[in-house]
Amino acid sequence: MASIDDVARAAGVSTATVSRALRNLPNVQPATRVRVLSVAAELGYVPSPHAATLASGRTRTVGVLTPGIARWFFGEVVDGAEHALRGLGFDVLLYALGSPRTDGPRPPVDPNVLRRRVDGTLVVGLPLEAAEVSSLVGLGVPLAFVGSGPSGQVTHRIDDVAAGALATRHLLGLGHRAVGHVTGARDPLSVWSPAAGRREGWRRALAEAGVDGPPTWVVDDAEFDLAGGRAAAHRLLAARPELTAVFAASDELAMGVVLAARDRGLRVPDDLSVVGVDGHPHGELVGLTTVSQDAFSQGHDAAVGLLGMVVGERAPESVTYPTRLVVRESTSAPRADRGPRR
Amino acid sequence: MASIDDVARAAGVSTATVSRALRNLPNVQPATRVRVLSVAAELGYVPSPHAATLASGRTRTVGVLTPGIARWFFGEVVDGAEHALRGLGFDVLLYALGSPRTDGPRPPVDPNVLRRRVDGTLVVGLPLEAAEVSSLVGLGVPLAFVGSGPSGQVTHRIDDVAAGALATRHLLGLGHRAVGHVTGARDPLSVWSPAAGRREGWRRALAEAGVDGPPTWVVDDAEFDLAGGRAAAHRLLAARPELTAVFAASDELAMGVVLAARDRGLRVPDDLSVVGVDGHPHGELVGLTTVSQDAFSQGHDAAVGLLGMVVGERAPESVTYPTRLVVRESTSAPRADRGPRR
Repeated sequence: MASIDDVARAAGVSTATVSRALRNLPNVQPATRVRVLSVAAELGYVPSPHAATLASGRTRTVGVLTPGIARWFFGEVVDGAEHALRGLGFDVLLYALGSPRTDGPRPPVDPNVLRRRVDGTLVVGLPLEAAEVSSLVGLGVPLAFVGSGPSGQVTHRIDDVAAGALATRHLLGLGHRAVGHVTGARDPLSVWSPAAGRREGWRRALAEAGVDGPPTWVVDDAEFDLAGGRAAAHRLLAARPELTAVFAASDELAMGVVLAARDRGLRVPDDLSVVGVDGHPHGELVGLTTVSQDAFSQGHDAAVGLLGMVVGERAPESVTYPTRLVVRESTSAPRADRGPRR
Repeated sequence: MASIDDVARAAGVSTATVSRALRNLPNVQPATRVRVLSVAAELGYVPSPHAATLASGRTRTVGVLTPGIARWFFGEVVDGAEHALRGLGFDVLLYALGSPRTDGPRPPVDPNVLRRRVDGTLVVGLPLEAAEVSSLVGLGVPLAFVGSGPSGQVTHRIDDVAAGALATRHLLGLGHRAVGHVTGARDPLSVWSPAAGRREGWRRALAEAGVDGPPTWVVDDAEFDLAGGRAAAHRLLAARPELTAVFAASDELAMGVVLAARDRGLRVPDDLSVVGVDGHPHGELVGLTTVSQDAFSQGHDAAVGLLGMVVGERAPESVTYPTRLVVRESTSAPRADRGPRR
C-alpha cells in the first residue's frame, strides 16, 4: 500500500503539498493538484478518512453510465476508472444501459437514479440525446465523457475520424480500392458516436483516393461483437463479391469478419484483407491488423480529471488520445487477379 | 417494455399474484414468488415505484464485489446480474478488487464500504478469507456468491473439479498421457477457488488413467489472461518437451497457450493439443476445444435469488450449473512419433 511519502516522491512535491492537494486547501497550483491526484491514483494511495477530505462529497461515489461491460472497450475503461477511483477512496456506482442482450431501444437515462448518490458522473461510450445530457448537467455534479461526448463537455476519446481514415489509407496504400465497411450504428443518436466518426474517416480516405464508396459497401447494423461482425460480413460479402478488403469499426467486429471469410472459403489476407480498431489482445490470434488505442488510460485519466472537478478544479481540457497502426498478417496487397478496380 | 400482464402470462399466474409476489405480500408460495421474480427480470419488467415495494429496502442497490471486470467471466456475470437487477428496479454498486493491474496482494474486503449502502451483496469469483466472509455476513443483508463460494453460503457455480476432469479425460481419450496444466492460483486463499478445483479435476482424471502427473507438469502462477497463458506455456513447454497436450484453466489462458505453441514452431493440434474452460466466443478464432459454461445466467440467476432473499424468502439452494465439452480443432490424437508414454 502506497504511503503519502510515496505519492510525494513520485509527484516531486512535499508531503505537505500532497496533503493540501488531497484536502483541497489553497496554495496549491491547479496543475500540481491534478498531478498529485493522478500519482495518488496510479500508486493506489488510499488517504485516511480522518486525514483527507478529498472525499468530502456526500457520497464518495462516482456514477458510471455505460452500455454493458462485457465488451472490450467498456471493460477496459471501467476497469481503468475503477482503479483510479478506488485509489482515491471513491466507489463506482455502475449503470449498464442498453445491454446487447436487451432488445429494442435502450431506456432513456433517468438522472434521478443518480441524484444525491454520486459526487460526479462518468459516461462511457454512450451516445446521449441533448435532453439527457441536460438532465445530467442538471444534477449539479461534475460530468465527464469517455469514448464519445457532446461538444462543450469534457471528453476523453480518440479521434474516430482519423482512426477510420488511418485504417482505410493503410488498405488503399496496399493497392485496394474496393474497401467495404462493417459497423454498428443502431442508435439513431449517434451523430457524435465512435461508429459515425470511423465511418466518416473511411468515406474521406476513399474520396481522397478518388473512390466513391457506395452505401452498398457498408453494413451498419451489426451488433458490436464477434457474432455481429460475422453475420454482417456474410451479408456484405455475399452482396458485394468485388470487395478485396474490409475495414471494421472494432476489433471484435473485425474478428467476426475473419470468421465469415473463413466460413465462405476466402483466405485472409490473400482473398480478403481485414483491419479493425482497438488493439484487442485477442486480435493476435488471427494476426489482425488494427488501429490501437489505450482504453484503460482513457478511463483512468477521465476519472482522475473528474475527481479534480469534484474537489473544485476548473473542468480540464478534453483529451484526444493517440492511435497507432499495428500491421500484422490480416492485410496484404490484393491478389493480382482480383486487383484494384476503378 | 414488458407489462405486468406479460409477466403474468409468462409465469403462468394471475396479475394479482404477480403484484403480490413483487410486493412481498402473503399468500404466494415461495416457489411462485421466485418464478415471478425470475420472469420479471427476464422480461425487463420495471414495477412502478408507487405500485411495487419490492424495492422497499433502503437503498435499491446491490453491491457486487469482483476482481476486475475486463476478463470474460467477470464481465458476463456482472452483465447478467446487472440485467436482472435493473429489470427489478435495483442498481449495482460495483467494487472491483484485485484488478490484474494491481501489483501485490489485494486489499482485504472492507465491509464498511457497503454498510447502509446496499440491500444485498453478490461476490463474483473472489476467494475470500473466512474473516472476510464473516464480516460480510455481519452486514446483516443477504449474501450470495458466483463462481466460487464457501460452504454454508448460497453459491451459483459450475463443478470445477468435474470441469477439469472432463477436459482432461477428453485428452486421455484421444491417447494423450503427458498432459500438462496451466493455471493461475496466486491468491493463497484459493482452497475453494475455481483454479484449485480444476487442477484437482486434472489430477484425478490422470490418476484414474494410471498417470501420476508430476508437479513439474503444472504452471500455477499465470495471470488469468492471454498474455499470462502465453508466458506460462513458454516456461512449461521449454521445461517439459515430453508434453503432448495442455489443459488450461480458462479459455483466455488456453488461447495464450496456442500462441506460445505457435511462437515455438509447434503445430496445434499435431504437436500439441490444447483445451480450455469457459466457452469464450473468441475461442472459435483458433478452433479451441473447451468445457463451456453459461456465465451470464449464473450472474442473472444469482441476482434474482438474492432479491428473493431481500424480500424475505428463505435462502435458495446453491445451484451447480452444467458444463459441456465443445470439441473443435485444437485437440487430436498425439502424433505417432510422440505417442503416449507411460
